[in-house]
Amino acid sequence: MRKYQDDSLALHTDLYQINMAKTYWEDGVHERKAVFDLYFRKMPFGSGYAIFAGLERIVEFLKNFRFSDSDIAYLREVEGYDEDFLQYLSNLTFTGNVRSMREGEVVFENEPIVTIEAPLIQAQLIETPLLNIVNYQTLIATKAARIKHAVGEDLVMEFGTRRAQEMDAAIWGTRAAFIGGCGATSNVRAGKLFGIPTAGTHAHAMVQAYQDEYTAFRKYAESHKDCVFLVDTYDTLRSGVPAAIRVAKEMGDSINFIGIRLDSGDLTYLSKKAREMLDEAGFHDAKIFASNDLDEYTITHLKAQGAKIDAWGVGTNLITAYDQPALGAVYKLASIENEAGEMIDTVKISSNAEKVTTPGKKKVYRIINKSNQKSEGDYITLYDENPAAEERIKMFHPVHTYVSKFVTNFEAVELQKDIFINGELVYELPSLAEIQSFVQKNLGYLWDEYKRILNPEEYPVDLSEKCWNNKMKKIQEVRDKIVSSLSTKTKGEGEDDRFTKTDY
Amino acid sequence: MRKYQDDSLALHTDLYQINMAKTYWEDGVHERKAVFDLYFRKMPFGSGYAIFAGLERIVEFLKNFRFSDSDIAYLREVEGYDEDFLQYLSNLTFTGNVRSMREGEVVFENEPIVTIEAPLIQAQLIETPLLNIVNYQTLIATKAARIKHAVGEDLVMEFGTRRAQEMDAAIWGTRAAFIGGCGATSNVRAGKLFGIPTAGTHAHAMVQAYQDEYTAFRKYAESHKDCVFLVDTYDTLRSGVPAAIRVAKEMGDSINFIGIRLDSGDLTYLSKKAREMLDEAGFHDAKIFASNDLDEYTITHLKAQGAKIDAWGVGTNLITAYDQPALGAVYKLASIENEAGEMIDTVKISSNAEKVTTPGKKKVYRIINKSNQKSEGDYITLYDENPAAEERIKMFHPVHTYVSKFVTNFEAVELQKDIFINGELVYELPSLAEIQSFVQKNLGYLWDEYKRILNPEEYPVDLSEKCWNNKMKKIQEVRDKIVSSLSTKTKGEGEDDRFTKTDY
Repeated sequence: MRKYQDDSLALHTDLYQINMAKTYWEDGVHERKAVFDLYFRKMPFGSGYAIFAGLERIVEFLKNFRFSDSDIAYLREVEGYDEDFLQYLSNLTFTGNVRSMREGEVVFENEPIVTIEAPLIQAQLIETPLLNIVNYQTLIATKAARIKHAVGEDLVMEFGTRRAQEMDAAIWGTRAAFIGGCGATSNVRAGKLFGIPTAGTHAHAMVQAYQDEYTAFRKYAESHKDCVFLVDTYDTLRSGVPAAIRVAKEMGDSINFIGIRLDSGDLTYLSKKAREMLDEAGFHDAKIFASNDLDEYTITHLKAQGAKIDAWGVGTNLITAYDQPALGAVYKLASIENEAGEMIDTVKISSNAEKVTTPGKKKVYRIINKSNQKSEGDYITLYDENPAAEERIKMFHPVHTYVSKFVTNFEAVELQKDIFINGELVYELPSLAEIQSFVQKNLGYLWDEYKRILNPEEYPVDLSEKCWNNKMKKIQEVRDKIVSSLSTKTKGEGEDDRFTKTDY
Repeated sequence: MRKYQDDSLALHTDLYQINMAKTYWEDGVHERKAVFDLYFRKMPFGSGYAIFAGLERIVEFLKNFRFSDSDIAYLREVEGYDEDFLQYLSNLTFTGNVRSMREGEVVFENEPIVTIEAPLIQAQLIETPLLNIVNYQTLIATKAARIKHAVGEDLVMEFGTRRAQEMDAAIWGTRAAFIGGCGATSNVRAGKLFGIPTAGTHAHAMVQAYQDEYTAFRKYAESHKDCVFLVDTYDTLRSGVPAAIRVAKEMGDSINFIGIRLDSGDLTYLSKKAREMLDEAGFHDAKIFASNDLDEYTITHLKAQGAKIDAWGVGTNLITAYDQPALGAVYKLASIENEAGEMIDTVKISSNAEKVTTPGKKKVYRIINKSNQKSEGDYITLYDENPAAEERIKMFHPVHTYVSKFVTNFEAVELQKDIFINGELVYELPSLAEIQSFVQKNLGYLWDEYKRILNPEEYPVDLSEKCWNNKMKKIQEVRDKIVSSLSTKTKGEGEDDRFTKTDY
């Protein structure tokens, strides 16, 4: 990694993006304006909502987007691109528009989260890093929000660095976890870079190094004011908790005996027993911290059984999104300029209805019912529509269109904000604490039924009639075009065409 | 991230490591020599073997291990450490010994992969980043090796950047994937940084941008010599493959028509049909590339059905190790210097027999049968043992000790090499291509039964009698100590102690 002093992220993309760039450039269509939507098609974890994260990293990436000398040298020597194309690339910066949801926004499947409107060549080159950033950070912010929802008012701490998928995941994952609702992290570098509160006391190794718990806790207490003792190295209830109580009594006011940490065993049973022991010893304010493969499901069940846990350390399951370690966000062309300078909406069709894209430059509104301040759903329109000016809108399911309702007395809140205009950053990045609050505020607009951890109700993400009609028209155009082109070709595939698509 | 020009990785650790460091330092035990073993307890993916990766990144980390000015300032201002401790930290570098398996080594559960012998404070501070590196890179190298095993001689390409867990995972994951057997990557930056061959042509978006496949393929062919056409944007067999053939015929020798790529649909059916169409058109050498949520299982089944696929693009399932996105490697204290300067072996006991550590400074040998050049298993000894000097060794299961065999006519190959001695790098890092070959050579020592993708036979990882006896002795010492300490305390936990450990 240190081989290149000028390592940039411009090459952090798929080779095919650069190969397409070359075709566009040679064909002279590279500066045609293109509109791409970044969105995901399926809620992660079967969740009723997701939390968007990644914008700050995207802003930093786009601001600094530029091929470095060593990048160009690599493309010349190893990939063999022509000098004139390399010359063009070496002067390239991002000059487009970015409209995006804000970090911490509650987002749903099939709605544009980030929309890029830029010269085709630029929009294409940045696809891969944008997806790399949004897919991971959104996944982790969502997982953290679900865990925070299970935990309620208690503190959640992010403890996953050792199991994270390399260092960036530890760092940016911790930031996303904080956005989703974690209150602290064990990762000191994340604390330094992002101002996230840090947490942690000692490990089993310290008890081993001092051979017994009493000595280890005592030595720790003599060198730190705030003390949480890890009590499960040998035997939680017989040696760990008694040793912690003994040291807390001996040290008295010279330490803050914050509490104990359980890291193995049956956490319900051990926490109840430890609570009794701490209370009996007079340490009613001592907290019980727990960790050990926790996630939103185990936490829900521990709470249901009355576990006496005050703070929750979550590691592997959060930082890797263990039960679904990838969000499948995609980046699809919605509209492109033609030779005459007109924008032509485009569709990508598929035999799978959910995979058909929604053509056109669009806006996304959240429809808030003014009478109860709850959301009626999200409403995607073509760019020039203005639902706020309407008295009544029809919201209907974009696939099962008979599922519909009319909404009145609503506020239409536009969700995407201008981030870059003509390559200039026009958005002021909020603080991390503001983003964290923003999540909780946004979740407040959702009925509880959408927030249930298991089997939530499906939140409506609807298209306006105009947007839906435009999509149907574009699908029909593609079907007509393919059917007409087929009649001019030999069939080629013979009699056995059972799995080819015949529905157009 | 760019907030600090001097951002170092020394803070990329858990806060408790620094808090323990402070206790050790104040107690004056911080420079006592400690031996920690890094290992994992359970084979990932139910695999019969794993492939170690991460050493190059560890070497870079340790060589550069130093708290920067901004690190120290953060620890002072936010974490509130004392000046004298900060002064100590600011001068700290790594001065210890590292013995490690080489990257590409075939490794198994419960054997030391990396062993650190260093002043206690240093060994503790580096725990978290070492685990962060090894856990991810080993996981991906292993996954890639399994996929390569399923694929056989065909090319495997790493295509996962957009779904990777942030940027480091894309980069280091690609490197690990190459070690495990991938032959190319789509990530251009990984190509530049590590010299990995890159692959990729164009995306669906290019077909959309040009509205139809023929035009898009033609434009691509006019701007590139090597052509692989993506044929599934609209209809693979009716429009995609015919358009590819048409362009290949039109362009003739002015391009290298390498082949086509399938990215959706039933890959067995489509590849067979496409193969027929290509052959009929005279393109017998044109290759069929396939991708779409592939992993070692889908590839095995596609091959079993006779799919005509020549090269395999693997994304999400490889780069995130989707079916098991974390390896649970741990880092455990095996031995520590006492006041008198003697090394005292330590054990961490647990009610779970698999979690009990193996005390003492050790060596790991691979026992190769000289008659067939196949491995009889791995054999862990105390550091001063020399199995190579013995005629016959007894190998027995470390838990089910009656499972045993005597081995003669063997070669005992020591697996860990000296990497750092007294903080000096003494190891010459091999090239990535050498590491990739090393994997295949190492896998050659394993019987096929250990390499089966599903339900492989368990490879023996045994302890020498001396090492096993030392472990039993240490466990007994801890049990005796706890039992004697219990008799001096009030029970505290009352009558209801059903889940406390009573087995010592």
